[in-house]
Amino acid sequence: MKNLVEKQISREKIFKGNVLEVVRDTVELPNGKPATREMCLHLGAVAVIPILPDGRVVMERQYRYPIERVVLEIPAGKLDYKGEDPLAAAHRELREETGAIAGKMTPLGELVASPALISERIQLYLAEELTFGERELDEDEFLEVEYIPLSELVEMVMRGEICDGKTQIAVLKADKILRERKQ
Amino acid sequence: MKNLVEKQISREKIFKGNVLEVVRDTVELPNGKPATREMCLHLGAVAVIPILPDGRVVMERQYRYPIERVVLEIPAGKLDYKGEDPLAAAHRELREETGAIAGKMTPLGELVASPALISERIQLYLAEELTFGERELDEDEFLEVEYIPLSELVEMVMRGEICDGKTQIAVLKADKILRERKQ
Repeated sequence: MKNLVEKQISREKIFKGNVLEVVRDTVELPNGKPATREMCLHLGAVAVIPILPDGRVVMERQYRYPIERVVLEIPAGKLDYKGEDPLAAAHRELREETGAIAGKMTPLGELVASPALISERIQLYLAEELTFGERELDEDEFLEVEYIPLSELVEMVMRGEICDGKTQIAVLKADKILRERKQ
Repeated sequence: MKNLVEKQISREKIFKGNVLEVVRDTVELPNGKPATREMCLHLGAVAVIPILPDGRVVMERQYRYPIERVVLEIPAGKLDYKGEDPLAAAHRELREETGAIAGKMTPLGELVASPALISERIQLYLAEELTFGERELDEDEFLEVEYIPLSELVEMVMRGEICDGKTQIAVLKADKILRERKQ
């Protein structure tokens, strides 16, 4: 598949804000011609679907400004620094946002959110054997925690009622894995 | 859930490129304090999972520069203009990239790719009753078309071998829908 690869020639830094870093690269296309690629650089993120023994999932509702909606989603967060262990980040984000401590974390694979525009990769985990302590939200962080049965979340995904991509994937994957375990 | 909403106070335009548009808004948080929100504006996109009567899916491999990988994914593309009918865009992208014309398109819901950073929403469709004509790729567009059975794609998703988020969702949703139809 070498004939699909684009080679970096140069990079122009466009913007570096608190969360977004934008660059414009000049690349060489597979046909030898130059082209430009504008994109956002991202450290990477983790997302966790935490499931209680009775089948309920610890979910969050938070306002997502870019899409102007309160979004029902699984706990998630950015890596703190480049190269941070995603498993450690998953435990941290889960504890800070929901108070849950997971006795067992199973990797559910990764996802790239928008591979034409942003370098973001999200590592997904299934969290089980949960115990609960205190949440540790930042002063300016606002989110509500809610418990919803996994079976209900699967139906919501299939009816198109859950918009968040990582949440749709985690719900459908976790459901398949837990069903297969029972067989 | 009014107590989660952030109100726009002002907008600063940071960058407008060929594909990316970056803004920094000042918002009022639910606690009345100000905060800034950096984000990418996006017109929206469509993605289509095209399935042949024998269960094979028309897939694409293309190099995604931001993640430096050749990605196996379903046909997809941006809307041409704000407010474009996503169903029309789905038919267009499918035809241009794979040559396929769909006799039947079923909506599979939408997904937001990265709701903390980008306003992108992707409308998903299941395409069936396919006939094939010519592809119409841009001169500088490089992608390979491949036919893979849906059952194999489901296994690849579960093994973490398909990174693209929209593709994972479309594969798992289409599989559930087609199984339920058979019952």
